[in-house]
Amino acid sequence: MTLAAAIWDKLDTLPRPTLGELFSAARDGGEGADEPGGADRVAMLSGRINLPGETGGGGILFDWSKTHLDRAVIAAFEELAEAMDFAGMRAKLFGGEVVNPTEGRAADHATLRGTGDPAKVEEAMALIDRMGMLVGAIHQGALGEVEHLIHIGIGGSALGPALGVDALSRDLSYCDVHVVSNIDGVALEAAFAKCDPAKTLVAVASKTFTTIETMTNAESALKWLRDNGVADPGGRVIALTANPEGAVEWGVDETRILPFQESVGGRYSIWSSIGFPIAMAVGMEDFRAFLAGARAVDDHFRDTDGAANLVLRAAFADLYYTRVRGCQTRGVFAYDERLGLFPDYLQQLEMESNGKRVTADQQPVEGPTAPITWGGVGTDAQHAVFQLLHQGTHLVPVDFIASVAPGDELDPAHHRILLMNCFAQGAALMAGKAGEDPARNYPGDRPSATILCDDLDAAALGALIAFHEHRTFANAVLMGINPFDQFGVELGKQMAKAIEQGGEEFDASTEALLAAAGLG
Amino acid sequence: MTLAAAIWDKLDTLPRPTLGELFSAARDGGEGADEPGGADRVAMLSGRINLPGETGGGGILFDWSKTHLDRAVIAAFEELAEAMDFAGMRAKLFGGEVVNPTEGRAADHATLRGTGDPAKVEEAMALIDRMGMLVGAIHQGALGEVEHLIHIGIGGSALGPALGVDALSRDLSYCDVHVVSNIDGVALEAAFAKCDPAKTLVAVASKTFTTIETMTNAESALKWLRDNGVADPGGRVIALTANPEGAVEWGVDETRILPFQESVGGRYSIWSSIGFPIAMAVGMEDFRAFLAGARAVDDHFRDTDGAANLVLRAAFADLYYTRVRGCQTRGVFAYDERLGLFPDYLQQLEMESNGKRVTADQQPVEGPTAPITWGGVGTDAQHAVFQLLHQGTHLVPVDFIASVAPGDELDPAHHRILLMNCFAQGAALMAGKAGEDPARNYPGDRPSATILCDDLDAAALGALIAFHEHRTFANAVLMGINPFDQFGVELGKQMAKAIEQGGEEFDASTEALLAAAGLG
Repeated sequence: MTLAAAIWDKLDTLPRPTLGELFSAARDGGEGADEPGGADRVAMLSGRINLPGETGGGGILFDWSKTHLDRAVIAAFEELAEAMDFAGMRAKLFGGEVVNPTEGRAADHATLRGTGDPAKVEEAMALIDRMGMLVGAIHQGALGEVEHLIHIGIGGSALGPALGVDALSRDLSYCDVHVVSNIDGVALEAAFAKCDPAKTLVAVASKTFTTIETMTNAESALKWLRDNGVADPGGRVIALTANPEGAVEWGVDETRILPFQESVGGRYSIWSSIGFPIAMAVGMEDFRAFLAGARAVDDHFRDTDGAANLVLRAAFADLYYTRVRGCQTRGVFAYDERLGLFPDYLQQLEMESNGKRVTADQQPVEGPTAPITWGGVGTDAQHAVFQLLHQGTHLVPVDFIASVAPGDELDPAHHRILLMNCFAQGAALMAGKAGEDPARNYPGDRPSATILCDDLDAAALGALIAFHEHRTFANAVLMGINPFDQFGVELGKQMAKAIEQGGEEFDASTEALLAAAGLG
Repeated sequence: MTLAAAIWDKLDTLPRPTLGELFSAARDGGEGADEPGGADRVAMLSGRINLPGETGGGGILFDWSKTHLDRAVIAAFEELAEAMDFAGMRAKLFGGEVVNPTEGRAADHATLRGTGDPAKVEEAMALIDRMGMLVGAIHQGALGEVEHLIHIGIGGSALGPALGVDALSRDLSYCDVHVVSNIDGVALEAAFAKCDPAKTLVAVASKTFTTIETMTNAESALKWLRDNGVADPGGRVIALTANPEGAVEWGVDETRILPFQESVGGRYSIWSSIGFPIAMAVGMEDFRAFLAGARAVDDHFRDTDGAANLVLRAAFADLYYTRVRGCQTRGVFAYDERLGLFPDYLQQLEMESNGKRVTADQQPVEGPTAPITWGGVGTDAQHAVFQLLHQGTHLVPVDFIASVAPGDELDPAHHRILLMNCFAQGAALMAGKAGEDPARNYPGDRPSATILCDDLDAAALGALIAFHEHRTFANAVLMGINPFDQFGVELGKQMAKAIEQGGEEFDASTEALLAAAGLG
């Protein structure tokens, strides 16, 4: 048995006090240490990451006290981190070494915010400066009057831009951004309906510049510009890609190509030129604040050891629920309308990274990997899915995310009620309540973590995303898997291509469906 | 041991052929029957529901052949349906009898589309006619020029309207609808930014007319109208409620109150006056087609016995994965941009209905109840979460939904590629593929069902929703639980109120969070 397997076995047999027991009083935490209760427990399992910014003192509070982590569980996970050489893997990540062995690549997304190997950081900063110059020039009128940007990309080339624009550009927007991802023409038509072709730019975002959805949508967008009297449709295109040659070949002028590095994965690319639509909407100053917020988390994650590392601590809880308590899902509920797209963003980040079945050295993985990430916004979700959280039979560890400062200027009652509901849900999930009858009984002992931002500005959004990137990485390291490849998406693409090319026979159901759709 | 428990035990011990084995050839299906393979299997496990409509012959194909249902499994579930008196419960549902014992209520949503007890149907139709008259009058200018409708509601008063408007009003819209649900003022401000107050109506949707989010948002909307020079803000409000007295008291004139029945649950209320914003956007003719589509499913569900009942068959598969194969989730992927909100809608319908831990007669339920419903739209989801579906460690039964007719008028390549991808994913999940190396290996044998609409029009949307309502009901009956109450949402509300009122002490984490947010 490997050392890691022995630690998992130990984790499985540790005592399982309820959350109520953990909070109620100091108790023996094993190995002679007292387990702190009450406010001491909260102090032990809460921490802040401070963010750079004009206001100073702004930051994010991470409260993991309402999870089942206790000293014994944490000690076992700290052993696991050592057994899996977490510190070594982290050093490789930030050192620009290969951490994606199946593709022989580094994962250089942190360099985009200034963290890591100085040469790579310099290269990354030059690319971001190049983007800043183009954004500045467009804002100053270099491409004429620009009111709309249709951003075409899918997966990692869409989810980040959509989230960033939605979260940050509500108060002030230099231009109106429409993110189009689906090959379904309905998506592109919806964007057309909202844009004046004469004042519209089209961003085409694809790491390879070959993604079929993106290139099909890009062609249709050019046609729309042409059909609507735009003289030089090609001149309205900005390309965001790690394949600038491909973009040139497709017809984009070099001055409007914003490259990013091959070693930046699609789902980690929001910090690169894929963030162009965010910068177009909010301006480069906010985009740089967004990068700086992420850098603050990089610093914390790189420089803090053991469970004091708030990111690693979150990964301990994640794995405890996934592997010890059998949870197949993880819920994320942002009590903030601006984070409505955050669960979608995390789904890709977490599930595409860690939804794997082999280890980094190509052995079958022992135990479950990534749970299914799902969620929504509060208070909406309370009226839709919280029934199951409180009284269902599946245990779902939940993260709540909120901002102390309101995002609106309406009656302060709106934001006050919003936050009170957020905190009340965490309290209720943990406490439960004995019912008058079984249908009104709440078992409680259901875990949640709370991430409380002082303000949900660009720096905080950057920090939230970086926190989850590193959390995903930490989960992967502790499971021994490679979070940076994604071969699972290839087979479906191959089969779609085989259907398109014809000549191959599929199962009887697929054949019948093709016939029913007139594609047989 | 109860008969049901014995049947569950039997289900657990039945042979578990792979999907490949089930498709490959006829084999002994137990009890002397041959298990059909290939096209015969597809014929056995596919069926159509035809829909009313001008075109004639339009309908929906339901293909459940790529699930692990086989004759033996189906026979066991048919026994279970008998043991749980499925036919009797269904008769109660459509007969207007009490099917929600904890609240002593019937569940009369089917009467809203003309199915069930004639007296109740007559009452329902009168209410819908009343709504139709108001919609017609507004469209004809009775309330002046109306370009925008801000619809305020949450949970069941928001998810249906948002889905219906998004799915059906892209081509033709009488007015621009903004659904606002969150108490977070950011949501309401976003709607304000898009509406001209002088041309805006406000719909206030709340079954009880006391929902705190909705009433707070309604007050702020009135203030916005007033602050922007609308002389009689109250005169711009339409109330949609089962508590018309409450609406009158709040200040809405009776002529602008559209009531619905107390016996229609929030998450089943899209067919009632809660559907007003849908009718405002697409017109009453389409709204009536929407009801007629649902009625076609009512007829099929009411009049078809055993596994030939396509709804019941779907519930068999659902329960097989939840209870026999240990799946904590169910995935729904619509390959159609217009159904982007469908997974959100289903989350409430399924999880709030069946996320329970006691039976209808208040005993602890044996075995898991509702799985977590999650999903997204294709092809987007392929680039985000399908990695986990193909190569993760959690088994996720998936439904694909698509439409043969395109929703767009762009190059037909868009829709063709969309559908080919949809069918390819189902084929790939089932077939898998031996890899060159473990990281490129796809185990296959992963189930999916496909729902293929001839066209995604109003009738088809109504049919899709009704199909899932009855599917949820069938799941509940076979588990012996009450899908029509939702006491699980009460505790959180109570605790939020206690926080607001002050004086009560909470756990140390909640106290610390309140203090950090300045609410302590």
